Amino acid sequence: MKAVVLKRAGVVAAEEVPIPRLKADTDVLIKVHVAGLCGSDLHYYRGDADDGSFVMGHEVVGTIVEAGSEVKQFQVGDHVISPFSVSCGSCFYCDKGYTSRCTSNFCLTGGQAEFFRLPLADSMLFPFPEELPEDVALLMTDILPTGYSCAYNARRLLDEDADAPWSLADLKAGRVERKGVAIVIGCGPVGLCAISSATTLFETVFATDLNASRLAVAEKHGAIALSASELKDAVLAATDGRGADAVLEVVGHGSALNAAFEYVRPYGAVSSVGVHNLKFEIDGDTLYSKNVRMQFGRCSVRTFFPLALDVLKNNLELFKSFVEHKVGIEEAEEYYKLFNEGKINKTVFVMD
Amino acid sequence: MKAVVLKRAGVVAAEEVPIPRLKADTDVLIKVHVAGLCGSDLHYYRGDADDGSFVMGHEVVGTIVEAGSEVKQFQVGDHVISPFSVSCGSCFYCDKGYTSRCTSNFCLTGGQAEFFRLPLADSMLFPFPEELPEDVALLMTDILPTGYSCAYNARRLLDEDADAPWSLADLKAGRVERKGVAIVIGCGPVGLCAISSATTLFETVFATDLNASRLAVAEKHGAIALSASELKDAVLAATDGRGADAVLEVVGHGSALNAAFEYVRPYGAVSSVGVHNLKFEIDGDTLYSKNVRMQFGRCSVRTFFPLALDVLKNNLELFKSFVEHKVGIEEAEEYYKLFNEGKINKTVFVMD
Repeated sequence: MKAVVLKRAGVVAAEEVPIPRLKADTDVLIKVHVAGLCGSDLHYYRGDADDGSFVMGHEVVGTIVEAGSEVKQFQVGDHVISPFSVSCGSCFYCDKGYTSRCTSNFCLTGGQAEFFRLPLADSMLFPFPEELPEDVALLMTDILPTGYSCAYNARRLLDEDADAPWSLADLKAGRVERKGVAIVIGCGPVGLCAISSATTLFETVFATDLNASRLAVAEKHGAIALSASELKDAVLAATDGRGADAVLEVVGHGSALNAAFEYVRPYGAVSSVGVHNLKFEIDGDTLYSKNVRMQFGRCSVRTFFPLALDVLKNNLELFKSFVEHKVGIEEAEEYYKLFNEGKINKTVFVMD
Repeated sequence: MKAVVLKRAGVVAAEEVPIPRLKADTDVLIKVHVAGLCGSDLHYYRGDADDGSFVMGHEVVGTIVEAGSEVKQFQVGDHVISPFSVSCGSCFYCDKGYTSRCTSNFCLTGGQAEFFRLPLADSMLFPFPEELPEDVALLMTDILPTGYSCAYNARRLLDEDADAPWSLADLKAGRVERKGVAIVIGCGPVGLCAISSATTLFETVFATDLNASRLAVAEKHGAIALSASELKDAVLAATDGRGADAVLEVVGHGSALNAAFEYVRPYGAVSSVGVHNLKFEIDGDTLYSKNVRMQFGRCSVRTFFPLALDVLKNNLELFKSFVEHKVGIEEAEEYYKLFNEGKINKTVFVMD
């Protein structure tokens, strides 16, 4: 089969490789229809990988062509999609819905190929939501649930002391009303997903980005998008001088987080899904004096999949524009290069 | 009347000053029975005060001898106690129970005197809990509710995604079961209050302190108290290798907070009531990779008063030992000096 193989740092090639075989009774083999090229593929591309070449990719839509004997929820012929993060469905963390920290978690690879072996199929796959185009649906493997979880965590922290606390089931049943003023810091793809999600949970959503060209599209997603210099006064005016009830940080940089602490009101919530991998300085006095509450970390995609799916369906035309390039797998080398250089946005590999 | 007057940085004196007069219809005048000497009095003592001498103190038990015309809930002759932090009872924050961030908040002074003018009496005072000795009850003005809130916030963050979320009312009604493994970092007075409180909310409570002499008393309060070098392995053994469900940080230093991030499990809770007033470095990768959730800040004493009171009543003999010295106001100069030099613990001024 054809596959995108990482040869060494900075070099991928479309090559013929053997079709993978099932390794466990809980595996399935998927005939891939579309596979996304994701920002996190670039970590490997830039050299952050073990030795040895391997097939890239973890965003996949396809059809099951072989299923292990222990796969009970799916069968050959099923049209399926899967979160990017491996979860077993039964460990301490999966039990609580914290699938991103499943004790069996590891990084999926192998998706940018004609066939893809997926482990733990029963606790990984969702039936494909047939009302969606396959390329757009790839947003459901990661960034739409990630944006949603950022908004959810903020609202959750904010309401934790409510007289009548709500559960995820209440939210799914539509029993949680929009409330409060949120700011989204960062208007890249994940930020836009967070904005569309936040408009379902907060009454007013502001957004900001250092890159002014991103503000117009943030407005289309439902935010009042302002430059950093305009934002603070506008938020104070909207909150009787208190500051934002919640700040959603999707940048993954200490400066964005410190801006969040500046914008948030006392006892407000700061929710961060930005991938932080550096040390940074924070001001203990601000955290203490504002009684800040926070949630960090990687989204448990599986838990937020249904709610994020509603956001995608309700904003389909907007999200269609996220997919910039649809190309064949043989063009992988060029598109990895362009993506790595920041010259293009989302690319989807379409199989024959 | 006699009062402890701050003359200038490093100098207090027991002096004759005029008895205060009511300034607002919501004020009361209290004949003081006992007044605590508190660590935060030392901020003023060490020079962190505006110009001009004033009467020190904000921990008071006494009897109302005069009440403004708008005071409805209390009357002359009532035996009362008050949180240290001023709250109006009706602003955005007080409405939510976040009294420590009341928009009318300011620092009370004037309590170390024979008479004390207390503002906003209706939203400040509690009837004195008569089953308690007055000197021990002073712990209720600050550190016992502060320790309680630290434990509460941790448990609250931990349960925020529960299928059946609970409210403060559920907790007061005894409908929240003890669950999980917590660590208390810091075994000074607030830490001991946090430990006794945490044992009502968590199944297992570990505690640690750099000062080994504090560990024995932490054990008396119900913790498994270990040195830093022993703690990590013990907690991993108690949690199937995951790490602590919650870490309570009462030290107020970046190093203690970073230790908390190290001990906590993924999706665990870090609750901090330590007074942080410095900048410090944190590791973004740890926060992201562990999906850490946190709550910082000053306790809303009023909200946690009833629950903390139960902790005090149920551990009265232990907490009696917190009061080390009971002296007359004329000895203030000496006891401030000894306290400032770290030579003594809690002192209570007893009026004639």
